[in-house]
Amino acid sequence: MRLSITTDLTYRFERPCEVLLLLEAARAADQAIHSERLTITPAAEIARLDDSVTGERRAVFTAHGEVAIAYVAQVELLARDANLKGAAAAAIRDLPGEALRYLRASRYCPSDRFEAFASEEFGNLSGGDKVAAILAWIGEHLTYQAGVSDAATTAMDTFVDRAGVCRDFTHLAISLCRAADIPARAVSAYAWKLEPPDLHAVAEVYLGGRWRLIDATGLAPIDGLVRVATGLDAADIAFMTIFGKAELISQSFAIEKTRD
Amino acid sequence: MRLSITTDLTYRFERPCEVLLLLEAARAADQAIHSERLTITPAAEIARLDDSVTGERRAVFTAHGEVAIAYVAQVELLARDANLKGAAAAAIRDLPGEALRYLRASRYCPSDRFEAFASEEFGNLSGGDKVAAILAWIGEHLTYQAGVSDAATTAMDTFVDRAGVCRDFTHLAISLCRAADIPARAVSAYAWKLEPPDLHAVAEVYLGGRWRLIDATGLAPIDGLVRVATGLDAADIAFMTIFGKAELISQSFAIEKTRD
Amino acid sequence: MRLSITTDLTYRFERPCEVLLLLEAARAADQAIHSERLTITPAAEIARLDDSVTGERRAVFTAHGEVAIAYVAQVELLARDANLKGAAAAAIRDLPGEALRYLRASRYCPSDRFEAFASEEFGNLSGGDKVAAILAWIGEHLTYQAGVSDAATTAMDTFVDRAGVCRDFTHLAISLCRAADIPARAVSAYAWKLEPPDLHAVAEVYLGGRWRLIDATGLAPIDGLVRVATGLDAADIAFMTIFGKAELISQSFAIEKTRD
Amino acid sequence: MRLSITTDLTYRFERPCEVLLLLEAARAADQAIHSERLTITPAAEIARLDDSVTGERRAVFTAHGEVAIAYVAQVELLARDANLKGAAAAAIRDLPGEALRYLRASRYCPSDRFEAFASEEFGNLSGGDKVAAILAWIGEHLTYQAGVSDAATTAMDTFVDRAGVCRDFTHLAISLCRAADIPARAVSAYAWKLEPPDLHAVAEVYLGGRWRLIDATGLAPIDGLVRVATGLDAADIAFMTIFGKAELISQSFAIEKTRD
Repeated sequence: MRLSITTDLTYRFERPCEVLLLLEAARAADQAIHSERLTITPAAEIARLDDSVTGERRAVFTAHGEVAIAYVAQVELLARDANLKGAAAAAIRDLPGEALRYLRASRYCPSDRFEAFASEEFGNLSGGDKVAAILAWIGEHLTYQAGVSDAATTAMDTFVDRAGVCRDFTHLAISLCRAADIPARAVSAYAWKLEPPDLHAVAEVYLGGRWRLIDATGLAPIDGLVRVATGLDAADIAFMTIFGKAELISQSFAIEKTRD
Repeated sequence: MRLSITTDLTYRFERPCEVLLLLEAARAADQAIHSERLTITPAAEIARLDDSVTGERRAVFTAHGEVAIAYVAQVELLARDANLKGAAAAAIRDLPGEALRYLRASRYCPSDRFEAFASEEFGNLSGGDKVAAILAWIGEHLTYQAGVSDAATTAMDTFVDRAGVCRDFTHLAISLCRAADIPARAVSAYAWKLEPPDLHAVAEVYLGGRWRLIDATGLAPIDGLVRVATGLDAADIAFMTIFGKAELISQSFAIEKTRD
Repeated sequence: MRLSITTDLTYRFERPCEVLLLLEAARAADQAIHSERLTITPAAEIARLDDSVTGERRAVFTAHGEVAIAYVAQVELLARDANLKGAAAAAIRDLPGEALRYLRASRYCPSDRFEAFASEEFGNLSGGDKVAAILAWIGEHLTYQAGVSDAATTAMDTFVDRAGVCRDFTHLAISLCRAADIPARAVSAYAWKLEPPDLHAVAEVYLGGRWRLIDATGLAPIDGLVRVATGLDAADIAFMTIFGKAELISQSFAIEKTRD
Repeated sequence: MRLSITTDLTYRFERPCEVLLLLEAARAADQAIHSERLTITPAAEIARLDDSVTGERRAVFTAHGEVAIAYVAQVELLARDANLKGAAAAAIRDLPGEALRYLRASRYCPSDRFEAFASEEFGNLSGGDKVAAILAWIGEHLTYQAGVSDAATTAMDTFVDRAGVCRDFTHLAISLCRAADIPARAVSAYAWKLEPPDLHAVAEVYLGGRWRLIDATGLAPIDGLVRVATGLDAADIAFMTIFGKAELISQSFAIEKTRD
C-alpha cells in the first residue's frame, strides 16, 4: 500500500531558537520512501542527526519569526504481520543489546510499579499471547477521552483514571509489557484512517526476534502506519521540540492512500 | 592512578532465572583495564550484550541456587579535567545524535518540570558555569541522608524533601541540567575514597564537545571514579537486574589505589 | 465596608442528581449579612447542612433539567487586621481542638514533605513573622499563570513548577505554614477588586489566638474578602459539588462596594 | 466482650517538645471504658483537646529526656452489626453535616481519581452491597505485604502496586467508597486477635444512618475493635505526633480478652 503524507506547520518564534523535528518517515525495513520533501520557509540550514539504529530521522534548524514547515512524502508500506498469537518472547540473553533499554522504566512508563499486577493478571501467558491479552485488557478497561490527561500524565495515572488518549493507552501498554519482561517502546506514526488525521502514538514490542507494531487504541490499522520517531515513551517522540518559545499559528496533517 | 577493584556478591535463586550484570569497568577513553576477571560460581555460560556507544559492559547468565559473583580488576585512570568553568554548551545541531536522548525527561528525572526553576535560578549563566552553579546549589540546599528516599523517589521528590542519597543528588543534578538544555546522564562508578566502599551514582554532562563526569554529592574525587554503567538515570544503571526473584546473602565492594 | 454580591449559575442536568452549594456568605464574627437570597429555578427544596464551627453554609438540593442558581447578598465587612508582624503562634496545647486538623497534611497540601524546606528557609522566624516570610517567598518565586496547573496539582507540583493560579498559591502557603506547625486552612471568598470577578481561594492561619485571612497571590485586599467556605484545601471548598453529571451553561460573579 | 489494653512507649527527646497522643479509647456509643489510666513518666502536665463529635481523645504534653508513656484500660465492647448487606446509603441531604468532609479526597485517599473505576466496577450496586463488593475486590486483588509502602504511599500507589499493609488497604477502601459517594473515614483501633498486637488501621462507612466499622484486611474481627482516633486518613490518626524530634526506645502493645 502506498500512502501520501502532507504535513503543514506554522509557528511564530519571537527570538531565534533551535528546533528539532521528528516528523519524517523513518528508514525502516517495512516501509520504503518513494519521494519526500521537507521545506522550511524562510529557508534555513538543516543539520541532520539521524539515528542509524532505529532509522529515526532528525532535522535541526534555527527558527526566527514566522516559520512554515512542510513535509510531503510518498511511502510504500510492506505487509505487516499483525498477528501476535504464538510469537515467542526472547530470553534476555538473546535480545539485541539496544533492546535492553526498552525493558526499563521511563518517564511516563514506570513499569517497575506494574510487576505485581502484570504477574497477577497475565502471568499465565507468555510472548505474543501475553501482549494480546494486555491489549484486550486495555481495550476493555480504558475509555478513549480527551481532557482527562495532560503532559504530566503517567501510566500510573491512566491505570487509575481508566481514560485517556492515544499516548496514554500506549504508555500503559508499554508499561505492562515491560513489567512482563517484554521490551516495548513508543513509536509516532502517520496513521491511515485515523480520524481526525494526526500523528498517532503507538507501541512496538520485541517478539519472535523482531519489533512489531501494536496499537493499544485500536483506532488505526497496523498496516497503515508510517513509522516516524522511536523512543522510550512520549518524552522521546514529540514531532517538534523547541529549545525556546514559540506560538502555534496553524497545524494540519493529511494521510491518504494513493495505491493499494 | 591505578585502582584495584574487588566485588563479591552472593545471592540465592529459588528458581532458575536470568540475571543482567552491569558491574564491569566500562571500555572508555579515560580508563584502561589492565586486568580483570568475572567469575560466576557455580560456573554459568555468560552472554555478552556490550554497548559499543557508551562502552558499557553487560553480562547475562542464568542463575539457580546459591550463586557467587566475583569481579576483580585493575584499572588505570587517566587524568580528568574536573574544571567546568568556561566549558561551552553545544548547540543542539552540534550534538552527537546519541546525546539527544539525554536532553529528555526520564523516569527519575522529569526535567520538563524544572524549566521555570532552572531559568529563574541559573538563567543568567551558560555552559560549565551553569553546571557549576547547579552543583553549588545542590551542595547548599540538599542534605545527604539515608532513609528519606526509596526506589520510587524522583528528582521532584528530592527537590521538595531537600535530602537523599547519591542517586537522588544525581537525579536532581541531571534534571536541572536537562531543563537548561545541557545533555546529562547517569553513571555508576567504583569510587575511590568513598566511605563505605560502594558503587557510586554520579552524573555526566556534555560540555565542550565531550562528556564530563560530575559528582553532585562531592563525596568522591572525580579522578578516582571508574566508570561502569551509563544511562538516563538509576533505572538504567543498576549493577544487577534479576528477571525473577532472589535473596541477597552477602555483598562487598573494595576499591584501593595500587599505584599513583 | 459594605459589598454587594451577585452570583448567577446555570447548569443542565440530564438526570436528577443532588447538588451541594457552598456559595453563601459564611456566618462569621468579621462579617455581617444584611440581606441575601438564594434562588433555585425551577424551585427546589433546599436542605441545610450548615457548619456551626466554621460558619460555613451548605445548601443541598436535587437538580434536573436546566437549573438556574442565583445568590444575591449585601454583606458588611468589619475592619480586619492584616498586619501579621509580631502575632504569636500558639503552643499546641493552647490550640482550640478543631484547629488540630489544620496542622495535618491534606489532599493538595502534603505539608509533611515540606518540613526540611520550611525549617531551612524560615526556621529562624516564628509566628506572624514566619507567615509573612512565607508569603514574601511565594510572591518572589511563583508566577501567576493559568494553564500550568489542573485539578490534580498539589503544592509539591507547584513548588517545582513555580507557577499556578490562586488555588495553587494558597496550597503552597498552607503547606509551608503547616510544615512549620502553624494551623492553616483554605477559604473561598468573594473578593472585592479581583479581576475578573470570581470566587477567590485564600488561606487562613491561626495566630495570636484567632484565625487570620492571608492572600498568597496578593491580588485582592484582605479587607474586601467575604468568607464563604472553609476547609483543608480546594477539595473542601468547591462552590458546587455535583453528585452526578451536569453541563455548565453560564456562570457569572459580581462583587461591588455599595458603602464605605 | 471486655478487653484489657496495655500500651507502653518509651522515647528520648533531646530538647523539650510538645507531643500529641491519640491512643486512648474513644468515647463512643458502642464501647464503654470501665477503667483506664494514662501515665507519663516523669510526670507532665497533660492538656486535653478531646473531640466531642467523634469522641476522639487527645492528650498534649511537653516531653524532655527519656519519657515513658503507659496506657492501661479495660473496655467493654457492645455487639456490633458487621453485616453490611442491604444497608442503605444516605442521600446527601440526609447526611449529618459533619459527614460531608468524609466524602472528599484527602492526603492519602485521592478519591476523585477513582470515580471511573468505582463506577465501572461497582456501579450496579448500592449501599452496603457496594461496600461489601469493594471489600471483596480488595481482598481478592491486594496482598498484605510489608516493605512495599511507606509514609508517602497513597491509595493510587496501592491500587497500582497491589500490595501494602493495613493503612494501605484502608486507604484504598476509603477512596473507593468516597468515589461512590459513600462517606468513609479512617479509624485507629486496638484490635483483639491481631498478630502481632498493634494499633490497627480500619475504615468506617456511613450507611443506614450510622457509622459502621469495616476492616479491609480482614485480619481482626470487627467485634474486637476498640476505637481510638478518627479522621480522614492516616494523616489524622497517628497515635503520636511529635512537634520536634525524638528517638524511639521501645514500644509494646497488648490486647487481651478478660470477659466474654
